[in-house]
Amino acid sequence: MATDISILGLGLMGSALAGTLLKAGHRVTVWNRSAAKAEPLAAQGAAVAATAAEAVLASPLVIVCVLDYAATRQLLDGADLAGRTVLNLTNGRPAEARETAAWVTGLGGDYLDGGIMAVPQMIGAPGALILYSGSPAAFDRHEPALTALAEPRYLGEDPGLAPLYDLAMLTGMYGQFAGFLSAAALIASERRSVAEFTESLLVPWLHAMAAITPPMGTQIDAADHATDVANLEVNRVALANLETTFREQGVRPDLLLPLKAIVDRRVAGGHGAEDLSALVEELR
Amino acid sequence: MATDISILGLGLMGSALAGTLLKAGHRVTVWNRSAAKAEPLAAQGAAVAATAAEAVLASPLVIVCVLDYAATRQLLDGADLAGRTVLNLTNGRPAEARETAAWVTGLGGDYLDGGIMAVPQMIGAPGALILYSGSPAAFDRHEPALTALAEPRYLGEDPGLAPLYDLAMLTGMYGQFAGFLSAAALIASERRSVAEFTESLLVPWLHAMAAITPPMGTQIDAADHATDVANLEVNRVALANLETTFREQGVRPDLLLPLKAIVDRRVAGGHGAEDLSALVEELR
Ligand SMILES: NC(=O)c1ccc[n+]([C@@H]2O[C@H](COP(=O)([O-])OP(=O)(O)OC[C@H]3O[C@@H](n4cnc5c(N)ncnc54)[C@H](OP(=O)(O)O)[C@@H]3O)[C@@H](O)[C@H]2O)c1
Ligand SMILES: NC(=O)c1ccc[n+]([C@@H]2O[C@H](COP(=O)([O-])OP(=O)(O)OC[C@H]3O[C@@H](n4cnc5c(N)ncnc54)[C@H](OP(=O)(O)O)[C@@H]3O)[C@@H](O)[C@H]2O)c1
Repeated sequence: MATDISILGLGLMGSALAGTLLKAGHRVTVWNRSAAKAEPLAAQGAAVAATAAEAVLASPLVIVCVLDYAATRQLLDGADLAGRTVLNLTNGRPAEARETAAWVTGLGGDYLDGGIMAVPQMIGAPGALILYSGSPAAFDRHEPALTALAEPRYLGEDPGLAPLYDLAMLTGMYGQFAGFLSAAALIASERRSVAEFTESLLVPWLHAMAAITPPMGTQIDAADHATDVANLEVNRVALANLETTFREQGVRPDLLLPLKAIVDRRVAGGHGAEDLSALVEELR
Repeated sequence: MATDISILGLGLMGSALAGTLLKAGHRVTVWNRSAAKAEPLAAQGAAVAATAAEAVLASPLVIVCVLDYAATRQLLDGADLAGRTVLNLTNGRPAEARETAAWVTGLGGDYLDGGIMAVPQMIGAPGALILYSGSPAAFDRHEPALTALAEPRYLGEDPGLAPLYDLAMLTGMYGQFAGFLSAAALIASERRSVAEFTESLLVPWLHAMAAITPPMGTQIDAADHATDVANLEVNRVALANLETTFREQGVRPDLLLPLKAIVDRRVAGGHGAEDLSALVEELR
């Protein structure tokens, strides 16, 4: 089983990674806790390891993609990491990435952390991005292979950087999803098609409103919250209308209430003329 | 003062509407509570009315764009609305739109409600959209003029429809902004540039994630929450990592906590294998 890349963890994401690397012509060894998930990949030509330790031995590059860092450590425990590069694509915190890097390095391995900015369907397709941090030598060595998965972006030697930026991007995504889900519940309360609303109205609007976030970012960097777009008082009224309408429609406004609370607080504090960008001051 | 269109309310949005209609060649009468805001528009050729009632008399189409419906009613009170079309572009609730429509109609006017899906800078430019509902005859009559402001979309005779869809779209926007602001606070906590993060990483990611909301909408319409993207258990772990990281970085995770709470609740209820779309069930 002398392969190029081993993949430990064959959930939705690990299976997409393995399938894409196989299609790109790599020799791939796979392992999953519940063995059945390896079968479709074996049919595509992957070697199947009997244990995680065996999968680690099979390749110089060992990708881990499981539920959390506790699972990562558990499955690597006792494996011979000397001379291996461990690339952990499991979601985690900067602190966990730093600890895991120290542990792998202590056992003679190289450590890279990664944040996958893609859903499984996007792996190997344009638009997918993976953030990396950790050993620069390991990144240089494996970058050509990793490019098959997604556009690679190396953020620096501190292994905590990829998780930090990953979590910041997920934060943006979860906010967007929270808004979408609440909007969907409101539209559904009128027995209108959520899919049609989302496709024809919401998505173009989200694109237009995403376009005004970089100037808001510039205002945040400069701590200058003047506005020629819309002030907090106008947003306060809109959020009040929104909460009342949700209740009138029998839908829970819960996901938006903390934003409303900080807008109300900021306006009550005499800042009604400021831009929405000022709300960042309420978060630190 | 026989003009085509009167505009009452010259805040950031009302001024953008008036300026755009003037540029499109319309004869425009303006009025604002604090008179100074009319001056730049007078310099561009607008007639300035001394009172709101005078502005109403000046044109067959009367656009109101102020803070809320209470202000709308206050400034129209006592004006002669007979034979006028009142187009209210002020943010409000469906119930308020229906009440105001009945009141205007009772006074012999036609009523249109509108939801502006644009910031002032977008008015008159590609990408701006205005939702309309209310009198179909009034919409047909004024549509040619209104097209100068933004792409018009007429939703139906019930005046509450434009506010409903407006608020649903704002809900999506506020979620996106809440995510952006929280992400910005996290990036700023590392003394990194928020503008650069937003431009180069966050915006493309928000676009990619907006693209998966229409299929989620289809799932919501069908109440089918199976997933081949990412399950709630994986999202539960990511949200826990996110909350802990926010606290470790000294940033308040407040805006995302209700989403985390409903993910935790849904997973605890035995639904960890479902798609994020299932969260809509927790909102009704
Ligand atoms: N799906 C996405 O859209 C997406 C996007 C970006 C990043 N990610 C990240 O990718 C990682 C995996 O996500 P996924 O969607 O593939 O999840 P998934 O489909 O739920 O798969 C989870 C995987 O973790 C394994 N696992 C869980 N606990 C384990 C343990 N104690 N020991 C060994 N293996 C264990 C599971 O093994 P069994 O099969 O034996 O249960 C399975 O292989 C997560 O960190 C996630 O945040 C996912
Ligand atoms: N700005 C945006 O991006 C945007 C986007 C879509 C929709 N809108 C909607 O457009 C409307 C106006 O927003 P804006 O951004 O133009 O707000 P703004 O700049 O704060 O202006 C508010 C306007 O309302 C007037 N006003 C407030 N209370 C009044 C009262 N009791 N009687 C008469 N006039 C009163 C103000 O008059 P004074 O000058 O005398 O204070 C001013 O003309 C809001 O409903 C908002 O939701 C705005």
